[in-house]
Amino acid sequence: MKETRLKYGMVGGGPGAFIGEVHRRAVRLDNKAELVAGSFSRDYKKTLITGRELGLDEDRLYDSFQEMAKQEAARDDGIDFVSITTPNHTHHQIAKAFLEQGINVLCDKPVTTTVAEAEELKELTDQSEAIFCVSYTYSGYPMVKEARRMIEEGELGELRMIMGEYPQEWLAVPADNKQAAWRTNPDQAGISNCMGDIGSHIEHTVSYMTGCEISRLSANLDIFVEGRELDDNGGVMIKYDNGVSGMYWASQVAIGNDNGLKVRIFGSKGSLEWEQENPNYLKFTKLNEASQILSRGHEYLGDAAQANSRIPAGHPEGYFEAFANVYSNFAAAVQAKKEKGNIDPDNFDYPKLEEGLRGVKFVKKCVESSKMDSKWVDFN
Amino acid sequence: MKETRLKYGMVGGGPGAFIGEVHRRAVRLDNKAELVAGSFSRDYKKTLITGRELGLDEDRLYDSFQEMAKQEAARDDGIDFVSITTPNHTHHQIAKAFLEQGINVLCDKPVTTTVAEAEELKELTDQSEAIFCVSYTYSGYPMVKEARRMIEEGELGELRMIMGEYPQEWLAVPADNKQAAWRTNPDQAGISNCMGDIGSHIEHTVSYMTGCEISRLSANLDIFVEGRELDDNGGVMIKYDNGVSGMYWASQVAIGNDNGLKVRIFGSKGSLEWEQENPNYLKFTKLNEASQILSRGHEYLGDAAQANSRIPAGHPEGYFEAFANVYSNFAAAVQAKKEKGNIDPDNFDYPKLEEGLRGVKFVKKCVESSKMDSKWVDFN
Amino acid sequence: MKETRLKYGMVGGGPGAFIGEVHRRAVRLDNKAELVAGSFSRDYKKTLITGRELGLDEDRLYDSFQEMAKQEAARDDGIDFVSITTPNHTHHQIAKAFLEQGINVLCDKPVTTTVAEAEELKELTDQSEAIFCVSYTYSGYPMVKEARRMIEEGELGELRMIMGEYPQEWLAVPADNKQAAWRTNPDQAGISNCMGDIGSHIEHTVSYMTGCEISRLSANLDIFVEGRELDDNGGVMIKYDNGVSGMYWASQVAIGNDNGLKVRIFGSKGSLEWEQENPNYLKFTKLNEASQILSRGHEYLGDAAQANSRIPAGHPEGYFEAFANVYSNFAAAVQAKKEKGNIDPDNFDYPKLEEGLRGVKFVKKCVESSKMDSKWVDFN
Amino acid sequence: MKETRLKYGMVGGGPGAFIGEVHRRAVRLDNKAELVAGSFSRDYKKTLITGRELGLDEDRLYDSFQEMAKQEAARDDGIDFVSITTPNHTHHQIAKAFLEQGINVLCDKPVTTTVAEAEELKELTDQSEAIFCVSYTYSGYPMVKEARRMIEEGELGELRMIMGEYPQEWLAVPADNKQAAWRTNPDQAGISNCMGDIGSHIEHTVSYMTGCEISRLSANLDIFVEGRELDDNGGVMIKYDNGVSGMYWASQVAIGNDNGLKVRIFGSKGSLEWEQENPNYLKFTKLNEASQILSRGHEYLGDAAQANSRIPAGHPEGYFEAFANVYSNFAAAVQAKKEKGNIDPDNFDYPKLEEGLRGVKFVKKCVESSKMDSKWVDFN
Repeated sequence: MKETRLKYGMVGGGPGAFIGEVHRRAVRLDNKAELVAGSFSRDYKKTLITGRELGLDEDRLYDSFQEMAKQEAARDDGIDFVSITTPNHTHHQIAKAFLEQGINVLCDKPVTTTVAEAEELKELTDQSEAIFCVSYTYSGYPMVKEARRMIEEGELGELRMIMGEYPQEWLAVPADNKQAAWRTNPDQAGISNCMGDIGSHIEHTVSYMTGCEISRLSANLDIFVEGRELDDNGGVMIKYDNGVSGMYWASQVAIGNDNGLKVRIFGSKGSLEWEQENPNYLKFTKLNEASQILSRGHEYLGDAAQANSRIPAGHPEGYFEAFANVYSNFAAAVQAKKEKGNIDPDNFDYPKLEEGLRGVKFVKKCVESSKMDSKWVDFN
Repeated sequence: MKETRLKYGMVGGGPGAFIGEVHRRAVRLDNKAELVAGSFSRDYKKTLITGRELGLDEDRLYDSFQEMAKQEAARDDGIDFVSITTPNHTHHQIAKAFLEQGINVLCDKPVTTTVAEAEELKELTDQSEAIFCVSYTYSGYPMVKEARRMIEEGELGELRMIMGEYPQEWLAVPADNKQAAWRTNPDQAGISNCMGDIGSHIEHTVSYMTGCEISRLSANLDIFVEGRELDDNGGVMIKYDNGVSGMYWASQVAIGNDNGLKVRIFGSKGSLEWEQENPNYLKFTKLNEASQILSRGHEYLGDAAQANSRIPAGHPEGYFEAFANVYSNFAAAVQAKKEKGNIDPDNFDYPKLEEGLRGVKFVKKCVESSKMDSKWVDFN
Repeated sequence: MKETRLKYGMVGGGPGAFIGEVHRRAVRLDNKAELVAGSFSRDYKKTLITGRELGLDEDRLYDSFQEMAKQEAARDDGIDFVSITTPNHTHHQIAKAFLEQGINVLCDKPVTTTVAEAEELKELTDQSEAIFCVSYTYSGYPMVKEARRMIEEGELGELRMIMGEYPQEWLAVPADNKQAAWRTNPDQAGISNCMGDIGSHIEHTVSYMTGCEISRLSANLDIFVEGRELDDNGGVMIKYDNGVSGMYWASQVAIGNDNGLKVRIFGSKGSLEWEQENPNYLKFTKLNEASQILSRGHEYLGDAAQANSRIPAGHPEGYFEAFANVYSNFAAAVQAKKEKGNIDPDNFDYPKLEEGLRGVKFVKKCVESSKMDSKWVDFN
Repeated sequence: MKETRLKYGMVGGGPGAFIGEVHRRAVRLDNKAELVAGSFSRDYKKTLITGRELGLDEDRLYDSFQEMAKQEAARDDGIDFVSITTPNHTHHQIAKAFLEQGINVLCDKPVTTTVAEAEELKELTDQSEAIFCVSYTYSGYPMVKEARRMIEEGELGELRMIMGEYPQEWLAVPADNKQAAWRTNPDQAGISNCMGDIGSHIEHTVSYMTGCEISRLSANLDIFVEGRELDDNGGVMIKYDNGVSGMYWASQVAIGNDNGLKVRIFGSKGSLEWEQENPNYLKFTKLNEASQILSRGHEYLGDAAQANSRIPAGHPEGYFEAFANVYSNFAAAVQAKKEKGNIDPDNFDYPKLEEGLRGVKFVKKCVESSKMDSKWVDFN
């Protein structure tokens, strides 16, 4: 019978990796794509182990991502897109290899470790027919999409103030596990640890919800744990193009917090508050009225929140489901492109390469400002 | 290459069905089993539609569950287990058909609509080599498992009082959707709606956490929405064998609640509190100490909570992940049985048929007591 | 200059007493009455100590409450009302002494330890010109008054289900302090400890909010701590005259709870939820709408909530302020009676003797039912 | 008999005033001082009205604060201290008048509108024997005192990061009530509205809890509501002397917030979180442990928290009780001075003039920095 699911391959996600397996679970949840190829590790033996565990054909387990890009592009039944789940500093070269073969890409954030690299990918993508998704997971939450709709439709009036924060505890002491190692190593993580790893999530979530564009920013990055080379805490003051003010705080030394991403948006007519650890709810207050607790799955919510939910209100959806939404929305675009030859990405609700580029730039600007004693730096 | 995943089939879950798709997603999340056969609807055309959408071979799409049981039992590569996701009143005959073929069964709760039927299944299971899982989803939550461990290890001292509640809003007015229709229809739902559908979840969650066995109970079931034939609200007072007291409340007319299952356990040395809508946390208080908020994913938790988690603390896991845990633990038992020929089900953490039988009995006893003006009725 | 404040006296509240001092603070907060006389202890020396600390004239410090009643009644500038803050079993005789002198009474709850005594006080009050307030503190909270208004005005539709609970931890182990001693002693506390002390608060708060009258009830009272003579935990199932169902739970062995009074009211159009430990908020949900968090001090609240608040929203008012509201509303009635000679108590929002009588009856009925193996007992 | 209470007078607090009445209630709650004199308004008729309502002798109702200072100083039974509850810009001259007469002062915050004025008061106080309290209410909350104790005793390890915020909604639109009028008027409020009125509360609460001294700060103040002359929103980045980083946010346009003062302190070993709207609790997390919810009134708390509580855990104390603590601690100092002639103010837990001076400086530095495009400014 006819198999209508998309085919995808993965680079990264070998034995011991964390995020690659998260990607694979998220894809399976909605079943819009099937994993058929992989280069899961720089060590081919490990690629074989993971590939076998996943039941893949061995002739689609590749020694290198370059080989994979080339051979998959050559196959009639080649992959529809590749997922890149490797450490930050390798994203650029891997994405490039697939884009050059015209293969669609979904890449972990940060999309690259330098702005120049991200811009190069942007150029490549513009020239190719490939589309590019950056997996900003949190934008996949239904209530984040509801916030975006409400703000777009003016339910908050003119925006004024944005508060974003992302506190974590896990690097409050020197850590030596694999996850910590590459993130705190400038060679693998790039110019920033905390602001790059989680501050960038504040930036994206705020931007996705509000559409506000940063005009300039002033940042202070700290290193609190001795011996660390990159920031583990940081604050940013922001001015957006439309006169809105913002403050972001990201920290990996904030004991008592796991993944405490929280965004609060204040306008002239109302406000919104959303927390990643309790993601099925959205607090909404209109001027002079009682606060309302909007709950995922209810009919009073807009189309995007509905379309990105699977089960009724009160049965919590979580991180995997948000991740699956990113994939499903990207898969819809890939499918449409496959069927129609061409699409307008703006009609599809997945995080675009531009957003990834903006994120890399945000981190760069924060580092720049912090080095100049928190001087305001223009964003563009 | 060798495919190590289990194979399973499904009865129910055709076009427009809700819970069948939840099962399939939950299975895919962990990928321990692959759907290969189905009789998704009593209407074979609908079975074909669903089967094709799911990419199944047509020769494993069956006109009836009887056919499916027979033919799958006959195949060398027949299914390792069947998932039954049909309305309550059909569970018994379907489960029976597969048990008689020696096929392992996972069945939605309530496992049957009468105690006699459940007892018959129990007998059949005991005689066969098949194992039987009842999909009590909430017992799959990691923090429910942590509560069980803590109580078992005496962290609460001697238990005294148990408060369980499960309020919902969705039947506060007459509802005519498919989900509401069969649940409020005595022909399909059996002798109880509210206590059967959700009261039984309180019963199981409490029992799973504490091991307390009900000695006797006094129940009052209400019908608040005019024209309804079955209960939509109910309260139960309970005495357990060990002298513990309990109160349960289930309601489908409790405006402002979605799936508000909440269990509180009080002992001589401490207490626990868990809520399904915020399932990654467990409130624990020791006598004369500050309350603690235990959070899924942390190293201070016990083995079962850890083994049933996939991602670090602060990235919420939800309903699908709990459901997936039920499947994964059952799959582990099926796999072990397949490899070793025989297993002790008590070594595996999935809800057993005994628990399903007890649930059916609980509902029956509540209805009995309520009909006798809340007279206490003995449980055994 | 003219002093317009009322004058009051107190029985009880001597050295080491707790609640008497709470009364005095609450009165001072609003300054509608001035303490001028007292019989603070059965030991006159202690009365002198407390009286002097409070700056009272010694000729108004009395050896006995009988003496106080007589002499104050004889004075031109005698007290306008007496506050009775002694242990439960003494309320009756003290109240009687003052009523017989025509002196207005404010008495702690339970107003007496037997129904007969309460009925006698009722008769005495009806015959005299005195008015009688029972200090049910929680009815003084502004958001409890808002709930009452909303229900009265039909914002919840027809009521269906009421859930009330009051868990505490403090008697989870044998306690030997003064507060614990008299409450667990049948000679001083009467026939019930837990249900009498705190179950009665559920009864009153529910009744005050909803106006629902209990038709019959079925109760189970437990003694969990060895050696205790009176209940320390209890559950009640209730049917009200209007067909509403209810469940109450009171416990003094619920580790992790301080004064967790919580009331939830469900109707055909909406629901309310209020918690004493977070008393400035009221959760309100309309059918199919997002839950709202009403906050004390906002203009969207009704008159009674406004009139019983002193400061704007967001600066919490607590237990003393609720207590002060009881006093201020009672003082308004006493003042009006003083000025006009006669008043209709129903025009004043203080807890009446009828409510105290009903509370004593509630406790009696719970004990009765529990002794008859939770048989339903009619309330009237 | 001997009246041992202190005597105090008040400047401000006439008809229509808000905060003066709050002061008087707070004082009465604990009854450590009695109001005996006042100049409640610049309009003597209004002073008479308020004075009579309060039952004061008319010869202690004064036409002007100057008169009051002089005459009270001359009386044998003159006031022990004066409470100043007038608009900000008048604090300086009034305080000065009483200090010059050697009368102890309790003054609302901000103590003055310029640093020079505050320094002058400081000099005057140092030269006189008078003591001076600035009524920073929030430092009176028991759990704020507990936080201070825990940090002082090293329970958080070395401090790293401090997050303070104080969002309000009430000025989200142009407001024309009395409270709003003077606060947004530079002539009466001074150089800042939002940062002066509520940002200063963040500054004080943080400083009181942690003892951290600000080394330098960078601020951005906004005016969002058109036509307003002073800031209604502002953010501050801070460096403390000990290397700790901080971020403060104050806003009067934050719809959905009443008095949302919240302080989070992060150290190398643990963290604390406290919210003014739920002030009886303190969240405490040790590295790698479950978060704890400390509750006012429990025996596991330290001495200061206990000494500043009146009732057991679970009966909420609120704003008035915090205010009363400020007064009671100041009254204890005044009483001690009265008895011993001399005291060391550091032995008494009331907010000192130095703290008020620091607050005025904080506001000044914020305005300075904001005017220089958020340039860092040194605090000293």
